[in-house]
Amino acid sequence: MIKSITNKPLILVTNDDGYFAPGLKELIAMVKPYGDVLVVAPEQGVSGMSHAITIKSPLRSTLLEQNNGVTVYKVNGTPVDCVKMALNQIAERKPDILVSGINHGSNSSISVIYSGTMGGAIEGSLNKIPSIGFSLCSHRMDADFSLVKTYGEQIFTKVLQNGLPDYTCLNVNFPVISKEDFKGIKVCRQARGVWREEYDKRTDPHGDEYYWLTGNFSNGENGSTDTDEWALANNFASIVPVKTDFTDFESIKKLEAFNFSIS
Amino acid sequence: MIKSITNKPLILVTNDDGYFAPGLKELIAMVKPYGDVLVVAPEQGVSGMSHAITIKSPLRSTLLEQNNGVTVYKVNGTPVDCVKMALNQIAERKPDILVSGINHGSNSSISVIYSGTMGGAIEGSLNKIPSIGFSLCSHRMDADFSLVKTYGEQIFTKVLQNGLPDYTCLNVNFPVISKEDFKGIKVCRQARGVWREEYDKRTDPHGDEYYWLTGNFSNGENGSTDTDEWALANNFASIVPVKTDFTDFESIKKLEAFNFSIS
Repeated sequence: MIKSITNKPLILVTNDDGYFAPGLKELIAMVKPYGDVLVVAPEQGVSGMSHAITIKSPLRSTLLEQNNGVTVYKVNGTPVDCVKMALNQIAERKPDILVSGINHGSNSSISVIYSGTMGGAIEGSLNKIPSIGFSLCSHRMDADFSLVKTYGEQIFTKVLQNGLPDYTCLNVNFPVISKEDFKGIKVCRQARGVWREEYDKRTDPHGDEYYWLTGNFSNGENGSTDTDEWALANNFASIVPVKTDFTDFESIKKLEAFNFSIS
Repeated sequence: MIKSITNKPLILVTNDDGYFAPGLKELIAMVKPYGDVLVVAPEQGVSGMSHAITIKSPLRSTLLEQNNGVTVYKVNGTPVDCVKMALNQIAERKPDILVSGINHGSNSSISVIYSGTMGGAIEGSLNKIPSIGFSLCSHRMDADFSLVKTYGEQIFTKVLQNGLPDYTCLNVNFPVISKEDFKGIKVCRQARGVWREEYDKRTDPHGDEYYWLTGNFSNGENGSTDTDEWALANNFASIVPVKTDFTDFESIKKLEAFNFSIS
């Protein structure tokens, strides 16, 4: 476990909806009482960027604001670029904690793999910084973040106090419900599920075809009550601990039985 | 396990270096004897795109070539976009197997998380298609792929015969050595490691600063012989089975001890 410094922690904040997103502003307000806040966020909305990094074009960072313990930079890249730039170029010392979000839209189940919000959090955990990705299951720009702020603050402060296991971050999702209906915070596993993609095929004014990605989430679980999808559908917030070792240990023996040989 | 159809299998091929990359052409030549080949590859090199998807701009696909059982499309997106477009719009039936690569450069250890080559393979496995990402530990465009072709073909045919566990794909990496020095194919776990990033800071002709991503891989292992990094350093090809459930099950109890409450 990494113990955080409780005397004026440095809090790194990022997201994938861009430095101007309402969810980011709510997150800054939530964590600001607990330390110095350094925001390094994409200059554009970059949803669905996963763990992408910018290799073939140069990055630029721009200081936008610095007052009352909050410093805001924008970077012309992905959430992972933002975290790398923060750690390697912008921050004067290693952050004590990283928060990413609050994402406009769910990142539960398999969405973790496509999520730029979670890309940023995972990059933090690779650097042994306790990291949390927060998402609200609503894509509305005027969504009500009050539930996330109230209970997200509890999750944040407990992680600030206790740290997290090395190379593990948290994928936190909140349902869109009232405080009265809210049932609590549940530690879960990632539900099995996939996106069933459909493309919306259109024809441009020049007669050429193009496609917009669309699709529906298909839950592959059979009523298990220990998944993030179950928690969210039953008025709980879900916390899934996410790790960065993708090895399928159970399959190693099966593959060894393939008897690869060079003779 | 998914059993593949052995009578004229449909083989989906993608990569992240673009439809024109030598590694892709080598891969097509390697798998062509085993079925009908459908190539759907990015129109540009898109290394480091991880599992990114294109949401905010439209996709286009262009048929480039169709002869001798090989059909080639380019798509203006990421490897994951290519796989989704192939499965949802281009392929007439579900492919029996997916191969991605041959990547120009290693995707071992933590590089799996940044890799577009592996993004394509993982997307295949999410659709229950036995999927393999192949990489050669050389960034040279004129690299010698003959070792990968000889032993990669063995890996390919064994997966074609036996299938893979659902939601698991293979991350296969080859060292840059001669056939004489090659020791064999080793099933491994993902080595613990991180990229230590440095940015190359420059000033453009207008006096503004910009940054190029650079960095070095730092191996976090202490001599364990069961990792992909060990295998590659000791003249083996490495196969790591990669899964799509990122839950850190070991941390669930630790997090439950945080005692989150709503009272």
